[in-house]
Amino acid sequence: MNNIRLGLCQMKVTGDKQYNLEKAARMIEECKDRNANIAVLPEMFTCPYGTQNFPLYAEELRDSETLSVISKAAEYNDIYVIAGSIPELDKERYYNTCAVFDRTGKIIGRHRKIHLFDIDIRKSISFKESDVLSCGNKVTVVDTEYCKIGIAICFDMRFCGLYSEMCKAGAKIIITPGAFNMITGPAHWELLVRARALDNQLFHAAVSPARDNKAGYIAYGNSMVCDPWGTVISRADENEQVIISEINLDLVDSIRKQIPVAKLSAEKAN
Amino acid sequence: MNNIRLGLCQMKVTGDKQYNLEKAARMIEECKDRNANIAVLPEMFTCPYGTQNFPLYAEELRDSETLSVISKAAEYNDIYVIAGSIPELDKERYYNTCAVFDRTGKIIGRHRKIHLFDIDIRKSISFKESDVLSCGNKVTVVDTEYCKIGIAICFDMRFCGLYSEMCKAGAKIIITPGAFNMITGPAHWELLVRARALDNQLFHAAVSPARDNKAGYIAYGNSMVCDPWGTVISRADENEQVIISEINLDLVDSIRKQIPVAKLSAEKAN
Repeated sequence: MNNIRLGLCQMKVTGDKQYNLEKAARMIEECKDRNANIAVLPEMFTCPYGTQNFPLYAEELRDSETLSVISKAAEYNDIYVIAGSIPELDKERYYNTCAVFDRTGKIIGRHRKIHLFDIDIRKSISFKESDVLSCGNKVTVVDTEYCKIGIAICFDMRFCGLYSEMCKAGAKIIITPGAFNMITGPAHWELLVRARALDNQLFHAAVSPARDNKAGYIAYGNSMVCDPWGTVISRADENEQVIISEINLDLVDSIRKQIPVAKLSAEKAN
Repeated sequence: MNNIRLGLCQMKVTGDKQYNLEKAARMIEECKDRNANIAVLPEMFTCPYGTQNFPLYAEELRDSETLSVISKAAEYNDIYVIAGSIPELDKERYYNTCAVFDRTGKIIGRHRKIHLFDIDIRKSISFKESDVLSCGNKVTVVDTEYCKIGIAICFDMRFCGLYSEMCKAGAKIIITPGAFNMITGPAHWELLVRARALDNQLFHAAVSPARDNKAGYIAYGNSMVCDPWGTVISRADENEQVIISEINLDLVDSIRKQIPVAKLSAEKAN
């Protein structure tokens, strides 16, 4: 058995950054208390999701209060932390960026959201991240003591080619912090979480903020973990909570052997 | 409105090829009687699914009794036919091949299954198409008077990159004749049909043989059509039947405009 425990922190994000940081640190501690090896925060966990907020809450990574708090929480709790995402400022550009910390609090990876969320659904919701944000251009797979872990953010989940790239780079787990809304969430969240897991025969965890019906942008919640067979094995409802999901990494190789999709994909690409 | 009607022929395939051909012709006629514009047959509609049967039932395309019967049915009924698949013999190699006919009975395209079905699921089912079959190597998109239509076969459905290619080549409908079984069917059939539709924001129709519990390989049935939003709009149960699904092709452009995934995919690829 090759089991590890993922802790999904479905936190309710407020307009108070300090409050959000304390909440994130407490949820990371809860993950540790419940014997998780990896804690995952949601997309934009420091600031209410909205283009007008991103510049106000943005930080430079080298001098980030947020990353400093999370690094200390990772080290103190001796736990990996996949820090959802924050608005990052770099050379007058803003990015939607996830930082990954090892158990010593060191940053071992960073993913900038590649596919920006520009949607205009008639009579319901429109949103244009590209008004404010710039996009990343790198596939992100980090090394951990358990396995390689791929990182993507929210709208990235609609692009199966990105997930194939992470799979080919050796990922056995992919983590997607994301904040789907009350239109796209019920319609597509579970379908996409499952599809990306099954396509690549790996574990896929997607972590949303908790739902806040008073927020300008209402997140769907329903953070979940899906196994390499495409089965949802852990799932939150819409409320603030930490869910712990125990996964057996051996299942990745086992499923890939039974239905050799990943192998065939790699062969066809060569 | 830009509506067309798809007819999905979920036929029960027997060991009697003549019987199968007559059944296929009758179901195509039923599609026409019910005002369908395109009739679709299932994977391996002339022969019971099994590697030992493929050489026995194989035909050369240039001299194929099956294609002659289907061509006549297409012409007589003035309907497009996507002829599921048959075992094809070509230069001492066998392929799993779908032929596509226009309303005059002319062949306008051919898809050879690219990803062969080699699975070995512990304690339940193993199958190795590659013991007998060779694989195709071409992405298939045919022109029709309605729109471009992509064609893939069964196990191809697990490979999202192939569907992205068909989408980039202009497909607004993808047809996947396929015979999932009683393990992979309940677990993956609907998930994959929906995911490939949503990933590419197009209509996706998957057509299975009817279930025959006495067969050596028991097909799942559940032929279905999914729209570009990822919603299943028509679905058969396990029994032999023709289902007619009316689709509005304008929905493809509409969804692609609301959530510009296809556009962004194309940009990132360039």
